[in-house]
Amino acid sequence: MKAGRLFEYNAPVRVVDVPEPEIAGPFDVIVRVGGAGVCGTDLNIQKGLAKDSPKLPYTLGHENAGWVEEVGPVAAAGELRKGDPVILHPFTSCGLCRACRGGNDMHCVNGHFPGLDRDGGYAQFMKTSVRSVIKLADGTDPVPLAPYADAGITSYHAVKKVANLLYPGSTAVVIGIGGLGHFAIQLLKVLTSARVVGVARSNAKLEFAKKLGADAAFPAVNDGGLKDVRDFTNGVGADVVLDFVADKETPNSGVKMIKKGGTYSIIGEGGTVTDTTIDMISREINLIGNLVGTYNELNELMELNRMGRIKITSKVYPMSDVVQVMNELKDGRVLGRCVLDPWK
Amino acid sequence: MKAGRLFEYNAPVRVVDVPEPEIAGPFDVIVRVGGAGVCGTDLNIQKGLAKDSPKLPYTLGHENAGWVEEVGPVAAAGELRKGDPVILHPFTSCGLCRACRGGNDMHCVNGHFPGLDRDGGYAQFMKTSVRSVIKLADGTDPVPLAPYADAGITSYHAVKKVANLLYPGSTAVVIGIGGLGHFAIQLLKVLTSARVVGVARSNAKLEFAKKLGADAAFPAVNDGGLKDVRDFTNGVGADVVLDFVADKETPNSGVKMIKKGGTYSIIGEGGTVTDTTIDMISREINLIGNLVGTYNELNELMELNRMGRIKITSKVYPMSDVVQVMNELKDGRVLGRCVLDPWK
Amino acid sequence: MKAGRLFEYNAPVRVVDVPEPEIAGPFDVIVRVGGAGVCGTDLNIQKGLAKDSPKLPYTLGHENAGWVEEVGPVAAAGELRKGDPVILHPFTSCGLCRACRGGNDMHCVNGHFPGLDRDGGYAQFMKTSVRSVIKLADGTDPVPLAPYADAGITSYHAVKKVANLLYPGSTAVVIGIGGLGHFAIQLLKVLTSARVVGVARSNAKLEFAKKLGADAAFPAVNDGGLKDVRDFTNGVGADVVLDFVADKETPNSGVKMIKKGGTYSIIGEGGTVTDTTIDMISREINLIGNLVGTYNELNELMELNRMGRIKITSKVYPMSDVVQVMNELKDGRVLGRCVLDPWK
Amino acid sequence: MKAGRLFEYNAPVRVVDVPEPEIAGPFDVIVRVGGAGVCGTDLNIQKGLAKDSPKLPYTLGHENAGWVEEVGPVAAAGELRKGDPVILHPFTSCGLCRACRGGNDMHCVNGHFPGLDRDGGYAQFMKTSVRSVIKLADGTDPVPLAPYADAGITSYHAVKKVANLLYPGSTAVVIGIGGLGHFAIQLLKVLTSARVVGVARSNAKLEFAKKLGADAAFPAVNDGGLKDVRDFTNGVGADVVLDFVADKETPNSGVKMIKKGGTYSIIGEGGTVTDTTIDMISREINLIGNLVGTYNELNELMELNRMGRIKITSKVYPMSDVVQVMNELKDGRVLGRCVLDPWK
Repeated sequence: MKAGRLFEYNAPVRVVDVPEPEIAGPFDVIVRVGGAGVCGTDLNIQKGLAKDSPKLPYTLGHENAGWVEEVGPVAAAGELRKGDPVILHPFTSCGLCRACRGGNDMHCVNGHFPGLDRDGGYAQFMKTSVRSVIKLADGTDPVPLAPYADAGITSYHAVKKVANLLYPGSTAVVIGIGGLGHFAIQLLKVLTSARVVGVARSNAKLEFAKKLGADAAFPAVNDGGLKDVRDFTNGVGADVVLDFVADKETPNSGVKMIKKGGTYSIIGEGGTVTDTTIDMISREINLIGNLVGTYNELNELMELNRMGRIKITSKVYPMSDVVQVMNELKDGRVLGRCVLDPWK
Repeated sequence: MKAGRLFEYNAPVRVVDVPEPEIAGPFDVIVRVGGAGVCGTDLNIQKGLAKDSPKLPYTLGHENAGWVEEVGPVAAAGELRKGDPVILHPFTSCGLCRACRGGNDMHCVNGHFPGLDRDGGYAQFMKTSVRSVIKLADGTDPVPLAPYADAGITSYHAVKKVANLLYPGSTAVVIGIGGLGHFAIQLLKVLTSARVVGVARSNAKLEFAKKLGADAAFPAVNDGGLKDVRDFTNGVGADVVLDFVADKETPNSGVKMIKKGGTYSIIGEGGTVTDTTIDMISREINLIGNLVGTYNELNELMELNRMGRIKITSKVYPMSDVVQVMNELKDGRVLGRCVLDPWK
Repeated sequence: MKAGRLFEYNAPVRVVDVPEPEIAGPFDVIVRVGGAGVCGTDLNIQKGLAKDSPKLPYTLGHENAGWVEEVGPVAAAGELRKGDPVILHPFTSCGLCRACRGGNDMHCVNGHFPGLDRDGGYAQFMKTSVRSVIKLADGTDPVPLAPYADAGITSYHAVKKVANLLYPGSTAVVIGIGGLGHFAIQLLKVLTSARVVGVARSNAKLEFAKKLGADAAFPAVNDGGLKDVRDFTNGVGADVVLDFVADKETPNSGVKMIKKGGTYSIIGEGGTVTDTTIDMISREINLIGNLVGTYNELNELMELNRMGRIKITSKVYPMSDVVQVMNELKDGRVLGRCVLDPWK
Repeated sequence: MKAGRLFEYNAPVRVVDVPEPEIAGPFDVIVRVGGAGVCGTDLNIQKGLAKDSPKLPYTLGHENAGWVEEVGPVAAAGELRKGDPVILHPFTSCGLCRACRGGNDMHCVNGHFPGLDRDGGYAQFMKTSVRSVIKLADGTDPVPLAPYADAGITSYHAVKKVANLLYPGSTAVVIGIGGLGHFAIQLLKVLTSARVVGVARSNAKLEFAKKLGADAAFPAVNDGGLKDVRDFTNGVGADVVLDFVADKETPNSGVKMIKKGGTYSIIGEGGTVTDTTIDMISREINLIGNLVGTYNELNELMELNRMGRIKITSKVYPMSDVVQVMNELKDGRVLGRCVLDPWK
């Protein structure tokens, strides 16, 4: 089968022929990949910046949707059948450790991350676990929905964690209106009654934020939007800041943006967050990290999509365009998310 | 009346004669001070390091207990009577802002902090608000209990905020076994079922931690206790770290001590906390600040004291010893807390 | 001034002349009443069915809005000024008991309920507490907004208490689409992502529910809508049922409507709820009561109204129509809520 | 192997020879039973009162501990080995439904309850799922610990659900000091800072409650302890009542025992709970049911036992005494719990 693989760091992904994956363990499921989202993390992996770099060569792609191709014994005992449209939780969890038994799939101590630490979805078929498969409604086209599998679920997880801090009259800021941020703007409007503010660098993304429902959108120039957010909140600061960039200067301006008792929530990566302990205690603020969400959260998110309460902005390309698509993402020219179709 | 006042920064407190405070507003209450705790914050104020330095000269003392002397109209309508033994919430809140209406006294936007931003309790009488007065059981000697008013409530607030993260088999670390930490060790044992670990510099404080109920106590030498905590948790890390020092190297070792999904909680001050955003998200950790607690929390804490479930270690000195007591605190030679009695 | 007063049980309210209220205590505020909502509780009081019947004669009206007329000393120290448009929390709380200090105004042990246990708002002026006054945006016409003060806040309180139980794909049922229920339908859509189902007796109210945003509306005939809700949820049952009737057969059908682990939440009154303990434990269900909400909740609700995210359906009548309006409410002919204007 | 089986309702259990269970599915584990607790539910089943009666004959016993005998493929991939001492979660959950994925094993839609709906642990061997097995520390004697598997976990689940409602100065009442209640008294003291009150019928059980740590113990005669609890709480009522009887008159007195805003929590079965909706809303009270707890909860409980923070009172009998033991339980003569050893 065809697969988009990384052979060396700082070199382009190459589409090559590899053997198809096979059922081996009781939880295994083989999925015919319909779409694989292209994520900023893929760029970081390519640059050799991943925390636990995989052994090369390997197949990228941790944001996948498609159709069931073959099921192992545990899945066979359930309702999954060949041809079912599915979206895949990005993590394959064990189901037996304390984290799994408490519903926190993303903290599983025995899990794997296809596309990060083993072969992923830039391929015509991929192997996953029955524990990662979410069946979509009959007849659903899974291809353009792939970005829900990582950009969507991570955004949903981060928004749910702060939702109970928000109330009518409160303010939530989204820094970075990319693949994840474009979901966050919508999710904050659907799940909370806060006023939602977008912060981004380009005018195109500020316009995009407003189109997605933001009550205001401020440019990140100079001070990262700090003064605009302070003015918008009458000098008080935001209740919650969700930072989908979390690189260079955004942690600095993000922490300053929050009010007394407020929460600065990190989803992006690359930078460093710093604060004095006297500021942490005198404002009694919280700095929190976010990993991808739970299986149930991805299920809930797909229900929001089905109900039409949130909408994905994604564009599908043939896998042969992988190098060009990764370049466009690197240059910040993508609105929403790009998806590779390995069958085109 | 006699009062211990600061006349210039970096100079000793002087005990002088000043006029007695008088009832002026509807919420006012005059308290005959029995004991005023001496806190590390007093040392910082003396050094001119307070965030919002008060106008000099003024009377120190934000950790106070004593007896009701005179009540204004709102208090008069209630149950407080002259001679009642009382302990004082350190903050005088307005009762009408959103924070007050939600029970979060310490975030009141109109409040004051006697001893920090106005005359405090290093004096024979002080003025407070009916909203800050907690009546103790008849016959209680309030003098040695004064440290509950700030060291106690702050520790209780911080422990309550993390209590729901702890369960049988989990681990909580207390960095710094001083006035606040000596309460935290006990409170973690009473309010949670976690294993409790103390970290301190001197052997005397490590012994003190164990006497207070710590399951283990590790020296802070070299790595701040990091290796010992890792070993104690089989390499996994602590669920919660409460840092009552939060100066110099402790934020660094404290953040490293927590496990995936763990919480580093700051109560001390002086240092800086720093982490990469990739570490924040890949471990999905939380860094949280703590301010003093609520009025209800101080009430609950005094009930724990009354029931004998926690015990205070405090030593009472005449106010004339104020300079010597502040020096002992500076040198880290105090076990528990020192209290000044302005009538001796 | 004119006031609508009850002189004997089971007799019509009479509009008579009474002296104006006067400032007496530090918290007092006199409000020029613009509108007083007419509530089902007023009908029960009239019938002598209130739990703690007031001493007759007295002035009805616990759902009030208008303009500040005169302020006592505590209010004078704040921002309230004569002429400010205001809405009144229905309860006058003390601010000092444990419930008040925790933000739970409605459980204040020293509070009063103007319109229930003392003179209320069916009058040109009424006395309340500064703790009950919420300032509306300059220029707001408070008259048609009066029903937010009780029907609105009670509905908001009940919805907020169950909001964290609801998620995309879950189902919430509202039994009774009257003054309170017409808010609940909207609030469930704004604050949660559940599917919302209305149950009512008349076709007019079923249509009203759908117009307010309900995803489905079922008639209460025969089985109280039980079969329809079961079918709508594929036989599983609803996650949450909010019963704004809670009389005769609705507690019976309401408890049966909820699924395993579900919650039956009571806001109406008049009936009896019964279940076997074996059903309570084998389904692990919750039956919860709701009182009016907190001051902060009414503030949040008024912000939702200001933002246009929820809308009130109310109709204003001159106070001279009080008997007719109460009769229409008794006959179930009111959509939304009726408001009396004591100046017309 | 030997097994204690029910052949007809209202007849004694008979110990007979049956074939040993065998590994069939991927999750299967065969356990050599060391001890099987005898529970009030077994008496109800015997009387034909179970909600979903099993097909007769079958082997009773849903409270089991022992040693691993043989493991299926999923368990074999983990750490379980023949001879490991283990305790068994009473429910075999699927691990894949929404409830399981959220950690709520007891609401699994595909689960089974060995000893209730299939052969249980009154036998020398039993079949369970790897998802139900909790490994005990090496060298632990599992036999006397069996009652933790159902009486313990159910009590722990119920206490954890109310723990956040309790604070220093609050009151929790335990009705019924039997197998479950004897854990609840201890757990309330370990997990909360509430005052704990026991209510029981016999003097032996009242003494037992005090020995377990209850601050007070009141006889259930006449009014079910209602007056005594009211006096103990100065007329206010208890914050929480946990009813481990929930039969005949206890739901009536239990609901009356709780204060405004309080919670009546049901764990026992047999009776009916009834309240007027006006009482439910004017006191804003909660009535909640409890099912057995989660897998993680049983793990936490066993850690509390290992740490010595709670202790089990159990007595081990040879399985040949099954009829006599069931009779003693029926007569209310058991302190703590009886355990059958099928190898004696």
